[in-house]
Amino acid sequence: MPKRRTLSVALLGTKFMGRAHSNAWRQAPRFFDLPADIRMAAICGRDHAGTRRAAKTLGWERAVYDWKAVTADSSIDIVDICTPNDAHAEIAIAAARAGKAILCEKPLARNSTEARRMVDAVKRSRVPNMVCFNYRRVPAVALTKEMIDTGEIGDRIYHFRARYAQDWIANENFPMVWRLQSKVAGSGALGDIGAHIIDLARFLVGEIAGVSAVRETFVKRRLTKNRSYAKVDVDDAVNVVGKFKNGAMLSLEATRFAPGRKNQLSFEINGSRGSLAFDLEKMNRLRFYDARDPEYARGFRDIIVTEPNHPYIKNWWPAGHIIGYEHSFVHTIVDFVDAIVTRRPAQPDFADGLKTQRILDLIRRAAR
Amino acid sequence: MPKRRTLSVALLGTKFMGRAHSNAWRQAPRFFDLPADIRMAAICGRDHAGTRRAAKTLGWERAVYDWKAVTADSSIDIVDICTPNDAHAEIAIAAARAGKAILCEKPLARNSTEARRMVDAVKRSRVPNMVCFNYRRVPAVALTKEMIDTGEIGDRIYHFRARYAQDWIANENFPMVWRLQSKVAGSGALGDIGAHIIDLARFLVGEIAGVSAVRETFVKRRLTKNRSYAKVDVDDAVNVVGKFKNGAMLSLEATRFAPGRKNQLSFEINGSRGSLAFDLEKMNRLRFYDARDPEYARGFRDIIVTEPNHPYIKNWWPAGHIIGYEHSFVHTIVDFVDAIVTRRPAQPDFADGLKTQRILDLIRRAAR
Amino acid sequence: MPKRRTLSVALLGTKFMGRAHSNAWRQAPRFFDLPADIRMAAICGRDHAGTRRAAKTLGWERAVYDWKAVTADSSIDIVDICTPNDAHAEIAIAAARAGKAILCEKPLARNSTEARRMVDAVKRSRVPNMVCFNYRRVPAVALTKEMIDTGEIGDRIYHFRARYAQDWIANENFPMVWRLQSKVAGSGALGDIGAHIIDLARFLVGEIAGVSAVRETFVKRRLTKNRSYAKVDVDDAVNVVGKFKNGAMLSLEATRFAPGRKNQLSFEINGSRGSLAFDLEKMNRLRFYDARDPEYARGFRDIIVTEPNHPYIKNWWPAGHIIGYEHSFVHTIVDFVDAIVTRRPAQPDFADGLKTQRILDLIRRAAR
Amino acid sequence: MPKRRTLSVALLGTKFMGRAHSNAWRQAPRFFDLPADIRMAAICGRDHAGTRRAAKTLGWERAVYDWKAVTADSSIDIVDICTPNDAHAEIAIAAARAGKAILCEKPLARNSTEARRMVDAVKRSRVPNMVCFNYRRVPAVALTKEMIDTGEIGDRIYHFRARYAQDWIANENFPMVWRLQSKVAGSGALGDIGAHIIDLARFLVGEIAGVSAVRETFVKRRLTKNRSYAKVDVDDAVNVVGKFKNGAMLSLEATRFAPGRKNQLSFEINGSRGSLAFDLEKMNRLRFYDARDPEYARGFRDIIVTEPNHPYIKNWWPAGHIIGYEHSFVHTIVDFVDAIVTRRPAQPDFADGLKTQRILDLIRRAAR
Repeated sequence: MPKRRTLSVALLGTKFMGRAHSNAWRQAPRFFDLPADIRMAAICGRDHAGTRRAAKTLGWERAVYDWKAVTADSSIDIVDICTPNDAHAEIAIAAARAGKAILCEKPLARNSTEARRMVDAVKRSRVPNMVCFNYRRVPAVALTKEMIDTGEIGDRIYHFRARYAQDWIANENFPMVWRLQSKVAGSGALGDIGAHIIDLARFLVGEIAGVSAVRETFVKRRLTKNRSYAKVDVDDAVNVVGKFKNGAMLSLEATRFAPGRKNQLSFEINGSRGSLAFDLEKMNRLRFYDARDPEYARGFRDIIVTEPNHPYIKNWWPAGHIIGYEHSFVHTIVDFVDAIVTRRPAQPDFADGLKTQRILDLIRRAAR
Repeated sequence: MPKRRTLSVALLGTKFMGRAHSNAWRQAPRFFDLPADIRMAAICGRDHAGTRRAAKTLGWERAVYDWKAVTADSSIDIVDICTPNDAHAEIAIAAARAGKAILCEKPLARNSTEARRMVDAVKRSRVPNMVCFNYRRVPAVALTKEMIDTGEIGDRIYHFRARYAQDWIANENFPMVWRLQSKVAGSGALGDIGAHIIDLARFLVGEIAGVSAVRETFVKRRLTKNRSYAKVDVDDAVNVVGKFKNGAMLSLEATRFAPGRKNQLSFEINGSRGSLAFDLEKMNRLRFYDARDPEYARGFRDIIVTEPNHPYIKNWWPAGHIIGYEHSFVHTIVDFVDAIVTRRPAQPDFADGLKTQRILDLIRRAAR
Repeated sequence: MPKRRTLSVALLGTKFMGRAHSNAWRQAPRFFDLPADIRMAAICGRDHAGTRRAAKTLGWERAVYDWKAVTADSSIDIVDICTPNDAHAEIAIAAARAGKAILCEKPLARNSTEARRMVDAVKRSRVPNMVCFNYRRVPAVALTKEMIDTGEIGDRIYHFRARYAQDWIANENFPMVWRLQSKVAGSGALGDIGAHIIDLARFLVGEIAGVSAVRETFVKRRLTKNRSYAKVDVDDAVNVVGKFKNGAMLSLEATRFAPGRKNQLSFEINGSRGSLAFDLEKMNRLRFYDARDPEYARGFRDIIVTEPNHPYIKNWWPAGHIIGYEHSFVHTIVDFVDAIVTRRPAQPDFADGLKTQRILDLIRRAAR
Repeated sequence: MPKRRTLSVALLGTKFMGRAHSNAWRQAPRFFDLPADIRMAAICGRDHAGTRRAAKTLGWERAVYDWKAVTADSSIDIVDICTPNDAHAEIAIAAARAGKAILCEKPLARNSTEARRMVDAVKRSRVPNMVCFNYRRVPAVALTKEMIDTGEIGDRIYHFRARYAQDWIANENFPMVWRLQSKVAGSGALGDIGAHIIDLARFLVGEIAGVSAVRETFVKRRLTKNRSYAKVDVDDAVNVVGKFKNGAMLSLEATRFAPGRKNQLSFEINGSRGSLAFDLEKMNRLRFYDARDPEYARGFRDIIVTEPNHPYIKNWWPAGHIIGYEHSFVHTIVDFVDAIVTRRPAQPDFADGLKTQRILDLIRRAAR
């Protein structure tokens, strides 16, 4: 019997995504039967005190402050990139050169030129690589994919429409943050949340053939910590229409200006025999209309996606006991570890992330 | 070919129910192919000016003020009773003696003694008779009945629970009205709205074997028009549990003290293979859970009950174009006219209304 | 005291819209205190037998078969046009010349050239004129307008997105009908249902500055009555993005290929202090998010739009007793009659309908 | 500065509740700033291999098999009882004698006699004690409590109605399990899930004055592992009506025979100025009707209980990112540890659990 492998992880980033990924690395082995042991070896951040606290609270063996050193460290197997977007490319390319398996937060890069270099790097080094589009692994979304693939809504897709709406900067007095600056974030709502629904469009329906788009920056300047105003040079919202290569129609909206919508990633897909609809704010549900039901009893079914045979669910709780946002990261880690050990490609990999990046660029150009 | 019959109607009552029934008599022949012509001959009220106005506005040939005369009038075929509850028995008995077909608003009477006399009268005279439990003829409710009868939720019913909740007297300053006085109304929430859900319980599941109940009058006195206080001697709310003869469990609630619930008649029925749920505030919908669906795709279906093959619907509008509250009265009239012409019993008839009345009495006693 | 006026109406068209308008003319005086009496003088159709039946069933004094004669008839005050779209212009222009008040079904015409001629005609003759965009007068939609105008969602609108989705031709075997032929209908989903949401966009938010669009005909040919195939030369679906002149973003979708969506006209509007959302399949509801509520108690309110102080409601039933689809036509008639008698412009008038028509043309061009 | 304390925990039980509590002990220090360190010292089960596996997977230092030894072990500070109900009393009494802080799964005991002895034991030993009615600490439920206490629904409660409905044994072929045997479980749906809603009734509204009840065992025998049939001697469902001491009316239902209801703990509370409604299947939501809103804008608000100022939320994720079932146990642990360290009583303590137990007994007697 071969010795069971241990995979040592270094996490870069200590903020929101750092917390979410830390939790996922901790929880994955508690609920899933992983094919390797996980060692949470190091967490890396620039702020020494904050990183030390994070290491202790989040369960990492040590705090480190030099991403180049930890990325090169021969004891590390996996580099997990949770930094702001402008650091993704440099770190990922270094990690690839050092032969690490790489998990990178979305969007893969600030633009497709950067993303292209990252793909080249991981291909050259042949390292396992994955972009953390975690919503693919919400059970209801994974079920959507299964149901489309098995023909539950027919052999032809007519419409995919998705909306990712938040309201955290709808208030004009919300201050300037890095997500509102082009040089760090690359884009605004488009790259931050629009990237998720483009990934889902491609995951669930297929490649996009063309787009038209409009964008807007509703609040043009924001107050900085220095009590001066800085220009907002990213989009607050973007609306997109287009077509998929398979003939389906596409409609997308990403906005941070929808009061009352806290984290509403919703989509509806219409096929020739039925429809599927999802809303992340009700993430344990999937609505399904089956046109094959008898006419008197047709209606959208409100499936509670917590049954043992639903994707990822049997490892959690009994039917009707819902899971939360962070579980989608646990599922991502579970599948990434499985991909590393079985040497099968992880999905979505960097090449896939590049395709999404190209659509982001396409939309940006179309919206000018 | 036999000459087509004309049925002349006299309506007693000019208020809320008078308006609803008038509309139904007017609209029924416009949308349904009735087996007789309808003549809206007379509307009867005590207030001369008000009744004259009602006649004109609501479409009646003449206004009359003496219910005894119109009930005895040989040119009248149908007496439609929409008066306060305390007048039901006397009018219905007179109308039966005069050989009229009778439609009576619910509850049939103030108590089962009165109701018994009404049943005796219509049996003796063999006149067509019907109690206007209009909610039986909401399409979604009629569909519920059809689906239970065809075994869609299995051959065994486990639970029927219904709630009729309103909030129009939850405010302590709401004044005294006849519905809050025992000598006119018979009872409070119980007879007014509780009667509807008892009728539906019996219609959908079967006869009730026994009950336990509690009742409450939350606001004990109300201001009258004379600026003095009068005692509220009816129930504000009643809660009931019990069993049906077929073994199913019963749970009922009628209340006028549920802020936010405007006219919420809701029920849920659980059977051995599925469940059905309804809410009058969403009256064009029926929720259906089919335990025979594949496990991954089970969920309550939100059926929009506006398809051509749904009960009563093909006479109205295309799919998805909803109907309103008053349409349930139109359906009641349609079926009543059909029963008169075809000489088949109307449902629910007075005998059926008496059974409901006995359950009301049973609950009143249990709740003491 | 001036003698009360009687307005004589001639209705052109006996099908779906003919039935809906007939009902509205009949019901309006029963529930609303109109400033004139209504005489339902004539209904006009080409099929003699069918038109005679319609006259009797729908309550018109006489059936006529020559639209030119009835339009010129000096005893007629109002011409109500419910014919297929290709006849709108010719009839309306003749009616204007004859000095009639004109109510015309939407879309006003097949294109803006036709619509322009109609506007010229009514302006020249100074006759009252209105386009029957009935959904403006759904109480929840009228309430939306009131709430926007009084600043309930702030002084700035960020987003208007609307969708009109049906599924009646999603089945490939559905046969060819006039609505799928360009020469009769002008366009497909765009003109039929898209026109409604464009009208609502303009009504609720303001004029549209520019659009991008994609369209698709999913099923390219349909079986005719002659058992041969005919080409579908209208759009099955159209997706639009754009901007309003006031800076708000626009997103529209009209489709007949959304299985499970029977008559789903839905919109969501986001403003700087709140949001409003509506769905015609739940037409007695309006969802309202008020960003001024205390943070712990913020959430979309599900307003049941059946309170006495909601638009049009006090003339119907008590709170919680819902109204149906056809009531929106009653409200339209009520306001049209009021406009005629008070000599105030009806809204939306033909000039308004022309503006909507121009947006339809703009979208058609953009979608090529 | 006083040395920071470490609390050593022994968990008894390795099944569903064992997993849920293990997760809570692991996660609490990762997301909350606890006033003590937690040492997950031992997990105890009868099945040696299974317990060893559980220890490893769930994160316990050692597996032990003798509950008496571990309960007496001087290195243990906290005993967490997750065994079947029939073992609660004996273990808790031993743990109390050994001076341990005790967290006990609900229901506290099989009956109030047992519960009384447990209360006596913890009082005598003055040890911290808590019953794990975890649903009190779902954020939406904790918010309900806060809003009632601050008068958001008025100074008077009219109605509390709750339902706990599941469907896992609605299928007649589901086999015999310990939860269906009186001698182990004490009661059926009543004690298992009814206990939760009785606890919530008492937590949210106050003490119960009296009850009437009916119960039923729909499926009287079930197949055992030995392929013979055993009698089901617990209730499958129970319906309760009653009154609170403060005059509010009570309606409860607990059932395992509601197809489609997976884990539906729902309640609605009506007060003199508003209403609150909750459904565990949508556990991140709370519906709130405020009768003080302007009439045109009144409606149930659908509050997404994920704002930073909602109970427990700021320690998790940003607004709109929902949490799951197991988080309610984390909150329970957090509050229990706080109670131990600050020497304040934990809520609900055993004395509180005894009161709930007495209501369970009262219902059982009433339902005979």
